[in-house]
Amino acid sequence: MNITAYLKEKKELIDTFLESHFNTPFVPAVLNSAMGYSLFAGGKRIRPILALASYETCGGIAEEILPYAASLEFIHTYSLIHDDLPAMDNDDLRRGKPTNHKVFGEGIAILAGDALLTEAFYLLSNHTHRTSRITHCSVLKMIREVAMAAGAHGMVGGQAQDILSENETLDSASLSFIHTHKTGALITASVRMGGILANANEKTLHALTQYGENIGLAFQIIDDVLNVQGDSRELGKQTGSDERMEKMTYTRLYGIDLSKKKAEELVNNALDVVQSLSEGAEPLREIARYIIRRRN
Amino acid sequence: MNITAYLKEKKELIDTFLESHFNTPFVPAVLNSAMGYSLFAGGKRIRPILALASYETCGGIAEEILPYAASLEFIHTYSLIHDDLPAMDNDDLRRGKPTNHKVFGEGIAILAGDALLTEAFYLLSNHTHRTSRITHCSVLKMIREVAMAAGAHGMVGGQAQDILSENETLDSASLSFIHTHKTGALITASVRMGGILANANEKTLHALTQYGENIGLAFQIIDDVLNVQGDSRELGKQTGSDERMEKMTYTRLYGIDLSKKKAEELVNNALDVVQSLSEGAEPLREIARYIIRRRN
Repeated sequence: MNITAYLKEKKELIDTFLESHFNTPFVPAVLNSAMGYSLFAGGKRIRPILALASYETCGGIAEEILPYAASLEFIHTYSLIHDDLPAMDNDDLRRGKPTNHKVFGEGIAILAGDALLTEAFYLLSNHTHRTSRITHCSVLKMIREVAMAAGAHGMVGGQAQDILSENETLDSASLSFIHTHKTGALITASVRMGGILANANEKTLHALTQYGENIGLAFQIIDDVLNVQGDSRELGKQTGSDERMEKMTYTRLYGIDLSKKKAEELVNNALDVVQSLSEGAEPLREIARYIIRRRN
Repeated sequence: MNITAYLKEKKELIDTFLESHFNTPFVPAVLNSAMGYSLFAGGKRIRPILALASYETCGGIAEEILPYAASLEFIHTYSLIHDDLPAMDNDDLRRGKPTNHKVFGEGIAILAGDALLTEAFYLLSNHTHRTSRITHCSVLKMIREVAMAAGAHGMVGGQAQDILSENETLDSASLSFIHTHKTGALITASVRMGGILANANEKTLHALTQYGENIGLAFQIIDDVLNVQGDSRELGKQTGSDERMEKMTYTRLYGIDLSKKKAEELVNNALDVVQSLSEGAEPLREIARYIIRRRN
């Protein structure tokens, strides 16, 4: 299969939905602009695409779960806005553009993040787009999993540990906690979302979970590698920022070569676990390979 | 009825639930402390109590919806933490204690808010405590309403307008927008929550909505009045801060006396609309009267 075409097609589906969601603008206009500024700043839509690919693997039709999948991008975008704030990573550039607080000020940036996070749960619970093959029960299960993955037991916990670990002595337990929570939890939840909405059986859900955990960690390790040796222009932000802030990163603990090797191992694990799934799992396999290859 | 005893009894129910929710601490420990610091800083638990009172009015038993009601306090607490940040209202004191960011730093305060908001949606979607009389369908409807009330179309939109209106010329349309969105939306959603979970009919839900809108606005007007002439010790924060920041407030636009009169009118409206409800609506009536009398 042509993974580039697949990613492009699915990204367009997600983007079209996200744009249509702003047809009724939020008020005040500045808040609406701040939310849209970061949501439409050129994200790859990896998390929604993973949800769609996983749902298709389980026999579903991507369009049926678009709003649920798109909600993951609201959550991811909110996390980037808050992470970039001066009180956190203090980043001025993101995807080649000034960060949200640089454009709209800190107060509105914090609120834009809050609004995106809350809107995600509106999308997840909105019934108007639910098709009959998706039960109320699986929607509630999905919301619970997304909340768990995004909150203090997941992404927020990881980010808190991350900022607390700056300038600390390297420690593999903290590093592992940060990676599995800050990035891994929401990626795993994205993959599981597809399975849950398709009413996949326990065996399939288990395979999807292992796939998600492996690619989630690989994704974060490659992020660390790109922060050291990526191309600033392609990344759209300055490289070397982790090192300057003495962040707890894979590359700092294991070096570039070992980090890359570890990421490859993880992707191979991911490929192994989805072998048991249907032919339709081809996109999941190709996404795993893409995660290693990516330049931004 | 003895409203003081009623409020105390319901507050204890909520507090016990909130405390038990921290039996499994969040990690890292600092994040857990920051979340608990503001959640257990002596809030009146008005929003959860409104949900319980409304559920009882519709024939339910308060204990059945405790986790849902408690989620409202997570949302309210997150909003206070973020509102107090230097980039927003820049408050150093809240309920007589240093604000969250003063104790834990801005980064952790932002994350504690994010975590509380996300945890609210975990609580709202968690099935383990759902009793059979509450359907999946009404739970989803409730989540959607809470998300709508808390997000850009509600509380966050109101707070954005609030910070954008500082130092602006007084304008009754902006003031009304701020009040109905920043405070009114979540209070109305709290009252409606009880009705939705009890499967109340449209007529009852309509009455609860009107009740909520009236007391929500009265609550905010009294807040404005207390900010001018309340007792700093009883309030636990400095009075006069709205005036210093040239906030768009009721008292600034209409003066103290007219503001008080308006709040009384609103409470009378609220009392009128709940007349149509059952005998069980007595707590709702007493809470409306309490809102006018309160000193903090």
